[in-house]
Amino acid sequence: MPIVRTSGRLPDGRAIHFYDADPASPRRELAPPGPATTPPASQLRWDAWLDEWVVVATHRQRRTARSDVCPLCPSLGEIPGASYEVVVFDNRYPALPAVTGDPGPAGGHCEVVSYTDDHEVALSGLPLSRVETVVTAWADRTAALNERPDVAQVFCFENRGAVVGATLAHPHGQIYAYPFVPARLRRLAEVADTRWDAHRECVACVTVGREHEDPSRVVVTGEAWTAFVPYAAHWPYEVRVVPHRHVPDLAAVDPWERADLAHVLRRVLGQFDGLFQRPAAYVLSWIQAAARPARPAAHVYAEIVSPMRSPADRKHPAAGELGAGMYVNEMSPERAAAALRGEGR
Amino acid sequence: MPIVRTSGRLPDGRAIHFYDADPASPRRELAPPGPATTPPASQLRWDAWLDEWVVVATHRQRRTARSDVCPLCPSLGEIPGASYEVVVFDNRYPALPAVTGDPGPAGGHCEVVSYTDDHEVALSGLPLSRVETVVTAWADRTAALNERPDVAQVFCFENRGAVVGATLAHPHGQIYAYPFVPARLRRLAEVADTRWDAHRECVACVTVGREHEDPSRVVVTGEAWTAFVPYAAHWPYEVRVVPHRHVPDLAAVDPWERADLAHVLRRVLGQFDGLFQRPAAYVLSWIQAAARPARPAAHVYAEIVSPMRSPADRKHPAAGELGAGMYVNEMSPERAAAALRGEGR
Repeated sequence: MPIVRTSGRLPDGRAIHFYDADPASPRRELAPPGPATTPPASQLRWDAWLDEWVVVATHRQRRTARSDVCPLCPSLGEIPGASYEVVVFDNRYPALPAVTGDPGPAGGHCEVVSYTDDHEVALSGLPLSRVETVVTAWADRTAALNERPDVAQVFCFENRGAVVGATLAHPHGQIYAYPFVPARLRRLAEVADTRWDAHRECVACVTVGREHEDPSRVVVTGEAWTAFVPYAAHWPYEVRVVPHRHVPDLAAVDPWERADLAHVLRRVLGQFDGLFQRPAAYVLSWIQAAARPARPAAHVYAEIVSPMRSPADRKHPAAGELGAGMYVNEMSPERAAAALRGEGR
Repeated sequence: MPIVRTSGRLPDGRAIHFYDADPASPRRELAPPGPATTPPASQLRWDAWLDEWVVVATHRQRRTARSDVCPLCPSLGEIPGASYEVVVFDNRYPALPAVTGDPGPAGGHCEVVSYTDDHEVALSGLPLSRVETVVTAWADRTAALNERPDVAQVFCFENRGAVVGATLAHPHGQIYAYPFVPARLRRLAEVADTRWDAHRECVACVTVGREHEDPSRVVVTGEAWTAFVPYAAHWPYEVRVVPHRHVPDLAAVDPWERADLAHVLRRVLGQFDGLFQRPAAYVLSWIQAAARPARPAAHVYAEIVSPMRSPADRKHPAAGELGAGMYVNEMSPERAAAALRGEGR
């Protein structure tokens, strides 16, 4: 499916990229940009107790004072034109770029990914071809951002629902391009590298093989991707979506694998919505290789987690999780997989 | 202040410990225990992607179906007697002990710490002597649990408020004694050890010295403890309470230091309640040395974090924090410290 990207700038100087699959889509005409604005300053601070960076972004408090107008709806908000398919643009209230308060990195980049111009539809409710366009936009932005000298790690994600802090109802995700590798992604890479160095073994490849042998935790099997509840799931409902081929990031995924991913991802997200017969609150995170150096152990995958145990009961990470770092999961991963598959509904 | 401990068992076999400071307190008469019950089984599962343990504790879903009777109020719930000062007893719905699904540790222990028999008062609202009794109970249980062969790490904590998942309103905390060192505590120890090995420097000692030099982030200074907002705070309101002396855990804190801790802690918790002129939701975590081996770098401290930015606005950790591992803090740590000190109120 050929997808056309049209890049330009918004009147205030922010970058915008349209991704269009429909040949009938209008040719995007972008007005010449106004004077480029400097994003508000955030500050990177080094936590010497945990060896990790924290961003202090006081300007983001302003985003809580929102207007009633959805900024992602066409003709209303920030996006020019009467309609669009998928659009990616610089976040107006970015946590990054950040200047640094300590010797270390600076820079970075935050983007918004709007999946559709329809305010009312979910990613799981879009046509398959549109989900494929979203996957293509993630892959394209990952490749482009990885080229930037101030980017060390690209992170595509979606926070859906007010209970996970989403401030806009319009179906959308975000991309953070960090000037360093954040702590959890660094940890995942270190664990994968240690196993690779010791046994020439990829934890993702080994796990996918095992889940196929015993499918009790599998929720969707595609041609190129498998979705399963992890054996040691941290959250009541948690799914990993993993490619069968050992590829480091979305940019390295082949077109036919992207089409299969669109199919698997759409089904999994539909299963989340089916759980409680309502739109599910979830956090979708793409775990990808860092921009550099190339790591032979790197294997891309998505994590989708929901904090909800039932429509009215959510897991709150508290002292055990946030202070000590041990998760208690009150849901059996095998039962969660069965529930996601729709058994017993 | 001499504090008397009386230990025994509840009729169902669970252990209970009364801590009494008042000489007029009744001598605790505990009925002979009934047959010991086996706690419900949890399962430890190894997450090979993150190198950490997760507990799957399906039986804990039952605790959501609670009666209207507070189990911590005297004469009503689980605690025998018409009144008490501080009481510690085995949790009825423990996440631990756990059997293991993988080669590795098993066991562990979960306790409840009730601060008072008064349902309506907060830890910050108790008399100073009572807070000292709570501190003594933490220290005593830390020493006792560290002796157990199935305990690797003792973790004293409090989750206060429904927004951090507290299921009981009665003022209380908990103690988890893990059969391994949980991931975040292990990480904190590794970072401290690395610095100690390289520079013979304790990150807590160095930080306390710097906060005293520039008190812009200090919220309470005691004789033996200082409370400050961390330079790289992860949460809108976050305070570390750190002893000036390099001691590994609460059991090693001297009696006069415990009295000072009671004073500093009570003031800090009062500052949290003063922020929004209402009982604050917070997570209080005690970072202590593991049971063994002794580590020269170990320095005990408490972390108190609140996810609330304002009475109606909370920070939700989502993909950036939970998936990537980078926290974005929208509150300046220096402004948070000033607000906790009551400036501008």
